[in-house]
Amino acid sequence: MTTDIKNSIPTSGGRGAMLNVCLTPALLPLYHVEEYIVVVIDIFRATSSICYGIENGAEAIIPVAEVAECAAYREKGLSYLLAAERNGEVVAGFDFGNSPFSYTAKKVAGKTIVLTTTNGTHALHLSRMAKKIVIGSFLNLTSLCNWLKTTQHNILLVCAGWQNNFNLEDTLFAGAVIEQLKNDGYTLDDPAIAANDLFQLGKNDINLYLAKTSHGERLRKLGIEKDIEFCLQVDLTKAIPVLEGDRLVKLV
Amino acid sequence: MTTDIKNSIPTSGGRGAMLNVCLTPALLPLYHVEEYIVVVIDIFRATSSICYGIENGAEAIIPVAEVAECAAYREKGLSYLLAAERNGEVVAGFDFGNSPFSYTAKKVAGKTIVLTTTNGTHALHLSRMAKKIVIGSFLNLTSLCNWLKTTQHNILLVCAGWQNNFNLEDTLFAGAVIEQLKNDGYTLDDPAIAANDLFQLGKNDINLYLAKTSHGERLRKLGIEKDIEFCLQVDLTKAIPVLEGDRLVKLV
Repeated sequence: MTTDIKNSIPTSGGRGAMLNVCLTPALLPLYHVEEYIVVVIDIFRATSSICYGIENGAEAIIPVAEVAECAAYREKGLSYLLAAERNGEVVAGFDFGNSPFSYTAKKVAGKTIVLTTTNGTHALHLSRMAKKIVIGSFLNLTSLCNWLKTTQHNILLVCAGWQNNFNLEDTLFAGAVIEQLKNDGYTLDDPAIAANDLFQLGKNDINLYLAKTSHGERLRKLGIEKDIEFCLQVDLTKAIPVLEGDRLVKLV
Repeated sequence: MTTDIKNSIPTSGGRGAMLNVCLTPALLPLYHVEEYIVVVIDIFRATSSICYGIENGAEAIIPVAEVAECAAYREKGLSYLLAAERNGEVVAGFDFGNSPFSYTAKKVAGKTIVLTTTNGTHALHLSRMAKKIVIGSFLNLTSLCNWLKTTQHNILLVCAGWQNNFNLEDTLFAGAVIEQLKNDGYTLDDPAIAANDLFQLGKNDINLYLAKTSHGERLRKLGIEKDIEFCLQVDLTKAIPVLEGDRLVKLV
């Protein structure tokens, strides 16, 4: 991007800011996260469900790593909804699992939800020194990108991955974000270039592209094909969840 | 791959063995390296120079991480050639740098070379529990792949990267190896699928594809474009360097 300094007041874009991708939480120590706005990405299904829940009026979503940690919130008051699942089933005694279909306005409006998500919580925890942490998914893609453009900060897209391993669905989403930002003067690193190139290969049919991945297969075995399809819908929502303390709330 | 058990004696291929890619040494703790044959990849320029040197009759190449460690070999005898460079220049008092053009038969035949390579040595060290460690580069691509097919073991392609970060050139080479092995019944993980897909994008002109990367730019600034071109030549050599103790020698 070229700008005429005298005649322009920058209103958006990178202008030399960094747009980087952290391919798994295990690589986060390589980054000075305090210099970035971090976007946490866990497409199947934590960050998709979070975006949908906040869009539908949830007051807050509290991500925790373990089922026991989630259960401990029961004692803090009945106003909490508790979401925990193992092997595709809602854990006995909990209100619902991790399916985005549980996060409808009817169920979550005005409520605070405690959500068990191992990979997502791990990524959030390791990013805690960032300038700001927001949540991304295909559901809020364009809304998120439009906001990112206004910040003029370095951006680090953190793929939650699977047990610290690289996965394709989170990387592809990072590539989709880069697709919307890359002409705004950001400096990309190699992982960002790779993520965007992989997005080019998959963008015409993301579900088909991901069908060949290990994680997709694992999720299909859990019988949650409908969740997968739901999570791959682009721009269904506008809300941007942001971390305040230990709670994800709507960015205003 | 389908095989008729009664009528076939398997002679090559994966048949369910794993073909995985470790995108940076920082992710090696996620793998049980002792279950794999490891291929160490550091395209610009350590593993390319090693392949060329072993092809040209070097008796052995000893990879070390630091210039001081390399210098210490001087006291062990004049038969060692010492290779060390910083910022594209041969360090004073050393025999040559890391350019593959230094590894001609005239210079290295019958000699043992001590090579300073930070990223490559790091990857080798972290892989030391593997069943076997061999060295890959575009120079020995097909020879390496043909040998890998005969082993019927799990294969882990370890990208040395840049200071524990992902880089595109090492990943693209991993994708080139997968291209030659993927129809032999191996099970790929997500990083392997991604590496092979990136290779599809770059294979028609790898140099052009890599021109956009951060590392390529860094190397161009060092004035080693000719080294880069050299390292991207496919199948110039046949030798496969293998680690024995702390020495890389020719696999026989």
